[in-house]
Amino acid sequence: MPVPGPGYAITARVEVPASASAAGDLTMAVGRVGGVVTAFDVVESHTATLVVDISCNALNESHAGEITAALESLPGVRVRKVSDRTFLLHLGGKLEVHSKVSLRNRDDLSRAYTPGVARVCQAIAANPADARRLTIKRNTVAVVTDGSAVLGLGNLGAAAAMPVMEGKAALFKRFAGVDAWPVCLDTQDTEEIIRTVQILAPAYGGINLEDIAAPRCFEIEARLREMLDIPVFHDDQHGTAVVVLGALRNALRVVGKKLTDCKVVVCGVGAAGSAIIRLLRSSAPGDVLAVDIDGIVHPGRDGLDDNLRWIAAHTNAEGASGSLADALVDADVFIGVSAPNLFGADELATMADDAIVFALANPDPEIDPAIATARAAVVATGRSDYPNQINNVLAFPGVFRGLLDAQARDITDAMLLAAAAAIADVVTEPNPSFIVPSVFDASVAPAVAEAVREATKQKDVAPV
Amino acid sequence: MPVPGPGYAITARVEVPASASAAGDLTMAVGRVGGVVTAFDVVESHTATLVVDISCNALNESHAGEITAALESLPGVRVRKVSDRTFLLHLGGKLEVHSKVSLRNRDDLSRAYTPGVARVCQAIAANPADARRLTIKRNTVAVVTDGSAVLGLGNLGAAAAMPVMEGKAALFKRFAGVDAWPVCLDTQDTEEIIRTVQILAPAYGGINLEDIAAPRCFEIEARLREMLDIPVFHDDQHGTAVVVLGALRNALRVVGKKLTDCKVVVCGVGAAGSAIIRLLRSSAPGDVLAVDIDGIVHPGRDGLDDNLRWIAAHTNAEGASGSLADALVDADVFIGVSAPNLFGADELATMADDAIVFALANPDPEIDPAIATARAAVVATGRSDYPNQINNVLAFPGVFRGLLDAQARDITDAMLLAAAAAIADVVTEPNPSFIVPSVFDASVAPAVAEAVREATKQKDVAPV
Repeated sequence: MPVPGPGYAITARVEVPASASAAGDLTMAVGRVGGVVTAFDVVESHTATLVVDISCNALNESHAGEITAALESLPGVRVRKVSDRTFLLHLGGKLEVHSKVSLRNRDDLSRAYTPGVARVCQAIAANPADARRLTIKRNTVAVVTDGSAVLGLGNLGAAAAMPVMEGKAALFKRFAGVDAWPVCLDTQDTEEIIRTVQILAPAYGGINLEDIAAPRCFEIEARLREMLDIPVFHDDQHGTAVVVLGALRNALRVVGKKLTDCKVVVCGVGAAGSAIIRLLRSSAPGDVLAVDIDGIVHPGRDGLDDNLRWIAAHTNAEGASGSLADALVDADVFIGVSAPNLFGADELATMADDAIVFALANPDPEIDPAIATARAAVVATGRSDYPNQINNVLAFPGVFRGLLDAQARDITDAMLLAAAAAIADVVTEPNPSFIVPSVFDASVAPAVAEAVREATKQKDVAPV
Repeated sequence: MPVPGPGYAITARVEVPASASAAGDLTMAVGRVGGVVTAFDVVESHTATLVVDISCNALNESHAGEITAALESLPGVRVRKVSDRTFLLHLGGKLEVHSKVSLRNRDDLSRAYTPGVARVCQAIAANPADARRLTIKRNTVAVVTDGSAVLGLGNLGAAAAMPVMEGKAALFKRFAGVDAWPVCLDTQDTEEIIRTVQILAPAYGGINLEDIAAPRCFEIEARLREMLDIPVFHDDQHGTAVVVLGALRNALRVVGKKLTDCKVVVCGVGAAGSAIIRLLRSSAPGDVLAVDIDGIVHPGRDGLDDNLRWIAAHTNAEGASGSLADALVDADVFIGVSAPNLFGADELATMADDAIVFALANPDPEIDPAIATARAAVVATGRSDYPNQINNVLAFPGVFRGLLDAQARDITDAMLLAAAAAIADVVTEPNPSFIVPSVFDASVAPAVAEAVREATKQKDVAPV
C-alpha cells in the first residue's frame, strides 16, 4: 500500500484561535485523514489568533485536498494558502550556469574574452584534441531526450521533459562533480535526433541518452556510438543494467550460488530488459529466458523485431516457449522491468530454492514485495520504501566521472561490468536486506569511476 | 602602434643569483625589449639563488620569445618555465553547471527527482506556458554559433569557437545574471542550423546568435524569428548596432547636432554594418550612405544580393555613386565596421565641421585614431586603449535581462532603440572622450533591462 511521501508534500498556512491545544488539534486533524506531519512553525502570534505553517506529506492531489478540508473543518480555523512543496522547489528551474573565471577588471576581460581568447581558439583549430584541455568539454555531459518516454508517464514532449533532465543534471553534479546540461529535443524523428546530437557533440565529453522510447532508443544509441568519438550511454538501458548486475552479484553471494549455474528469467524486453540481457550475457549465466507480454521469447515466435530477434538468438538455449509462469519453474533469479502484479505466491513457489526476486516495475512491482519476501531469499525493488532499492543514481554519476577522467572515446561492456562490480563491492558484507549501498554513500561514485578508468586501460578505446 | 596587453601575458619562473639587484636586473631586462612587467613574486629563497615568478604583458608570441631570451641572457639566470597566463585561465573551460536545489537526503531526491518531479512534468505537459515558471527556460539563453566567423579569425569551426561562446556566457552571468549556454554547431548548412536551433529551442528563453558569417546570418535570424516564440538576437548585428546608436546619441549631444540633419556614412555592410543601417533608419537620420569594398551602394550597381538590394532601396536618397572618399565629403558622421586604414587626414578634412568618426575595425581602425582625433570632434574605436570603446558588452546582457524578465516572444527595433538610449543616458554629461559608459559601470545592464522591459509593453509581442 502506498504511503504519503515527500514527492507530494504540502505546506498549509492556517489561522487558528490561540490556545494551548492549537498545535495538537491541527496535527491530529491531519493525522486522522492519513497525512504525515513533517513540520510545524508558528509564523505570527497575536492575542486571539496564531498563524502557523503546517507541512505534511500526502498521497496525491485529492489526498492533499482532504487534508486541507480536515484543517478547515476545525472550529475557528481558516486555511489562508496551501503551497505544494515540490512545485516550490522547481520554481525557476534547478540549474544555474556559473563562470569559473572572475571578470573584475579590464585585464580579466582581455584574457577571458577578446582579444586574449583568440589565441585559445586558434590553438584548438590547429590541434582539435586541445578542446579537452581548453574548453568545458573535459567535464561536460549532454543529457539528451526527445521526451518520448518521460519516467513512466509516456510521451510528454521536450518542454515537459525538462524537469527530469534538470534533475538528472543536478544529480550528476551532486554525486560526481560532472557538469551536465539538459538537451531536450523538439523532434521524435530518429534521423533528426541522431543528426542533432552529432551536430551538438563537439562541446561535450559524453552523451547520456534519457527517456527515449524503445525501440527507437536502440538505433539512436548504436548509430551515435558508431559516429561519435565520445562515449554514448543510454541510462535507461545501461544505468539500470549496471545496478541490476551489481545487486545480483551481491544477492548471489548472499545465497551462495554462482551465476554460471543459475537460470535467470528477465521479464520485460524494453530498454532496460534488453540491456540487462546483453550485459548478463557478458557474465555468462547458465541460461537466460526473456519474457514479454507475449510470453517466452524464442526464435520461432512471430513478429520479432530486430531487438527481439537478437534476444531470441542469444538466450533460451533449450528453445522453451510458454508463459511467464512456465519460465519461472526452477528459475534461480527473476528480474522484472515490466508491469505491476504479474505473478504471486503460487508461481513464486515453483522457483528454485533460495530464489532471488528483483521486481523493479515502478511504482507497483511485478509481485507484491510482502509476498515475495515471505518465500524468496533476496528481494529488491525500485522503491525507496523497501530494502534494496535498485536506483540508477548508483551508476551514472561514477560511470561518467570515470569516462571523462579517462577521456574515453567509447564505452564497452567491460567498463559496465567493472562499474557493476564496484557498486557491489562497496557493500562488504551483503545480507538479504542490504545488497546495494545507499545512494548517499559517498564512496560509491569514486569507486565506480575508478573501476571505469581502470577498465578503459584494458581496451583500445581510450584515452585520446 | 599596438602596446603589450593582458591578452598576451606570460609568467616566467626564473632562477637568479641571490643579490640586492636581482629584481631590478630582471625587470629592466624585460623593459629593454618592450615587455611590461605586471607582477614579481619570490617563490623560493636560497643562500645562493632566488626563484622568482615574473609576469609581464607582451605583444605577441614572438615578442614573448624575445622577453624570455632577454631574461636568459642575464649572467647566471636560468628560465625554468614560461606559462601563458591566458591559456592558464582557459584550462578546463570557463563554465560550470550548478544545482540550485540541495540534494542532502532522500526527501530532497524525492522532490527534485523521482517521484515528485513527475507531477511537475505533467503540469508542463498540461500547460506548456508553465515551462517558464518551472524550468530554467525563464533565465536561460542559448549562445549559438556555427564557428564560421569566429571573432576576426574566420571559419574555425564549432570546437574552436567554444572558448568565445563560453566567454560570452560568462559575461552574460557577470553583467546581468543570465544563465547562458554555449551551443556550437558542427554544421554550416543554413537549413540545418535553422532546424537544429528550432529543435533545441524549448529549453531556452532566448537565442543569441554569434559569429555566424554573413550573408547566412541574415536568413538564419529572419527565419528563426519567424518560427520561434522566443526572441532571437544576432549579437554581431544588433548588439553592435545598439551600442553604436547609443554612442552616436551622445556624440551628437557633444557637437550639438540632430540626427535628422546629419549625413551619415556607414562603411562595411556585413552583419554589423547592415544592422546599424537598419536601426539608423528607425531613428530617421537626414541621409545614410552605405559603402563597401565596391564603393557607395546604389540601386544601379551590379551584383547586389538581397541584403545589399534592401540597403540600396532604403539609403542614398540622392542616388550617389563613387568611392568612400566621395561619400565622406560633407558627411557629419562616419561609422566604419570594415577594414583597417581606409582613409587618412585628407579625406577627413572633407567631412563637415564637428565630424564624428567611429572607426570600429579591430584591431586596426579604418583611420589611425591619432590622425582622426586631431580633426574630428568625437572619435570612437573598438579598442580598449583609446577613449570611447564601442563594446557589445554594454548591450547584450541588459537586453536579454529585459527580454527574459518580460517573457518576451519577439524583439523589435523599438526595444533596440530603447536599449541604445538607456546606454547613452547612463552618461549624464558626455564629452568628446566620454560618450559611452565603462563596461564595468554596474548601472548599465539594469538601465538597459528596464528600458527593454518598458519597450515590450508598448507592443503586442510580450508577455506570454
